[in-house]
Amino acid sequence: MPKNKQILLDNRPQAEATAANFKLVVADTPALQDGQVLVRHHFLSLDPYMRGRMNDAKSYAAPQPLGQVMQGGTTGEVVESRSPKFKAGDKVVGMGGWQEYSVVAADQPGALRKVDTTHVPLSHYLGAVGMPGVTAWYGLVKIIQPKAGQTLVVSAATGAVGSAFGALAKARGCRTVGIAGGPEKCKYATAELGFDACVDYKKHQDAASLSKEVKAACPDGVDGYFENVGGMVMDAVMMRMNAFARMALCGMIAGYDGKPVPMSYPQLILTNRMTVEGFIVSEHMEVWPEALTELGTLVGTGKLRPRETIAQDIESAPEAFLGLLKGKNFGKQLVKLI
Amino acid sequence: MPKNKQILLDNRPQAEATAANFKLVVADTPALQDGQVLVRHHFLSLDPYMRGRMNDAKSYAAPQPLGQVMQGGTTGEVVESRSPKFKAGDKVVGMGGWQEYSVVAADQPGALRKVDTTHVPLSHYLGAVGMPGVTAWYGLVKIIQPKAGQTLVVSAATGAVGSAFGALAKARGCRTVGIAGGPEKCKYATAELGFDACVDYKKHQDAASLSKEVKAACPDGVDGYFENVGGMVMDAVMMRMNAFARMALCGMIAGYDGKPVPMSYPQLILTNRMTVEGFIVSEHMEVWPEALTELGTLVGTGKLRPRETIAQDIESAPEAFLGLLKGKNFGKQLVKLI
Repeated sequence: MPKNKQILLDNRPQAEATAANFKLVVADTPALQDGQVLVRHHFLSLDPYMRGRMNDAKSYAAPQPLGQVMQGGTTGEVVESRSPKFKAGDKVVGMGGWQEYSVVAADQPGALRKVDTTHVPLSHYLGAVGMPGVTAWYGLVKIIQPKAGQTLVVSAATGAVGSAFGALAKARGCRTVGIAGGPEKCKYATAELGFDACVDYKKHQDAASLSKEVKAACPDGVDGYFENVGGMVMDAVMMRMNAFARMALCGMIAGYDGKPVPMSYPQLILTNRMTVEGFIVSEHMEVWPEALTELGTLVGTGKLRPRETIAQDIESAPEAFLGLLKGKNFGKQLVKLI
Repeated sequence: MPKNKQILLDNRPQAEATAANFKLVVADTPALQDGQVLVRHHFLSLDPYMRGRMNDAKSYAAPQPLGQVMQGGTTGEVVESRSPKFKAGDKVVGMGGWQEYSVVAADQPGALRKVDTTHVPLSHYLGAVGMPGVTAWYGLVKIIQPKAGQTLVVSAATGAVGSAFGALAKARGCRTVGIAGGPEKCKYATAELGFDACVDYKKHQDAASLSKEVKAACPDGVDGYFENVGGMVMDAVMMRMNAFARMALCGMIAGYDGKPVPMSYPQLILTNRMTVEGFIVSEHMEVWPEALTELGTLVGTGKLRPRETIAQDIESAPEAFLGLLKGKNFGKQLVKLI
């Protein structure tokens, strides 16, 4: 059996996460039992939610256990199978974690699914046609419930969730405005991802200043907001939201490290009669088939061209992850393992 | 025609509202035109929302105009009528404002409605069987959507909205926990209003401390929260909310004066997959008949015994209103005019 490099969570962050929180080890891959499958990972997904799980705090998911392999989504290929459901060579998506191989109980519901790479590259099953894409779909369709002609805003617009959100919102006839960090990302959002406008939050020191540019980009106000970030960006967009606007709360990167970041103007929820709803896409498995079908079609027809930032080799995972938390990635952050 | 003492908004508050923002004048009551009714006000309603309207800020309602009579709910008696819909002696509820008399166009929808004082005292049509009661009903029934056995919390529990909320929640089989200021109000909440427990926020210096007492009062966590206050109280209750909890956002007294008060932990909306919804009861007139019927029955059968704080004479309205904003009232704050 092959040697298996793994990244463990070695200790919890005191405030900001650092490379010293992680530890690289080399393990043997155990011999397969009946019903098990050995998967060689091609791509490892890095996602902001992982930061929250590094803390030992009450949250929707149990904390990442210390001394164990960092959990996370993976795509790869079955290299050995003792299950009738999979054969060597099958391309699969699962939750293999930050390691080169995983042994999976094939019968466990949702543990592993085969994917078709004819029209959709394997890596996209971790992004636009995977959990981030379905996240965008759920927030848009089930929480924001858009109507054609409305103005919708998404933060982290060039990220895996944001870019899918943009394509899904355009398909519904909405004016779609992104918020991203830096001129390169903003240009990409409008030139490649189909956003009608993109606001560069890095040009602004405070929410009041950023909010003025949001107003210019959203002359009719904001009817729906998909929030990936929190903090100053959320405050700035909230100031421009219309009566009965709806906000899907999906991420709070601004608050993952250390101190929580407040919402500065909660009274706007009242004065604008807003609805704010937090959600976790893994609790809504019933929408995945419908969402993945639409997302796969958007990617297959070139209407959604998600960008990826790819780090090479398992050793690079911690630094790539820390970069993601600082917005250094451009599009979906992956680690390529072979 | 009688002389009519009126309270005008003379100037807008710089930060905290003061008596100097108001001005007493004496006007003539004009002769009635066809279709008009002259109402002598018996009670004037004082409500927290009025503070927001004193500011010249974008909100759900236009600001209270300067130099005009302070707007607000009134009950009284028709003293002269040139409309076939009303006759002298009719008891009525309307929006007569801070003055002793008002001239009302009887045909204007919602301007004036007759009420029956057989089982419900006239003053309660400004409280439990009026706008505050319907506010509690809408937040509970339409936003929180309670199930029997759940734990519900309301802030400003002995106020007009809070006390109605308590009775409505008990009628649905919920554990009902109030938050109020001071031992006298808390004792009243449990002894007279039927709350299962009441937490005195004035015993606590910060949200963390208050939150511990909320936890003790809500051993199974909080499933629904009706927010009248904002600030520290909101933070403390949010820390105890369960997965999929629902929060109706109705008031933000803590933020009406001067600086907005932030929500300290918005990430809880995400981690607990909460729904937070702001609302204005006047935008949901379709529920008023159903809500008023239930509230009238609760009052008529003694299951809801709302307390009132009554100031005497129009001259006392500004001080009574400023006291309301500081929580000095106990139950519904009214001004009695005759």
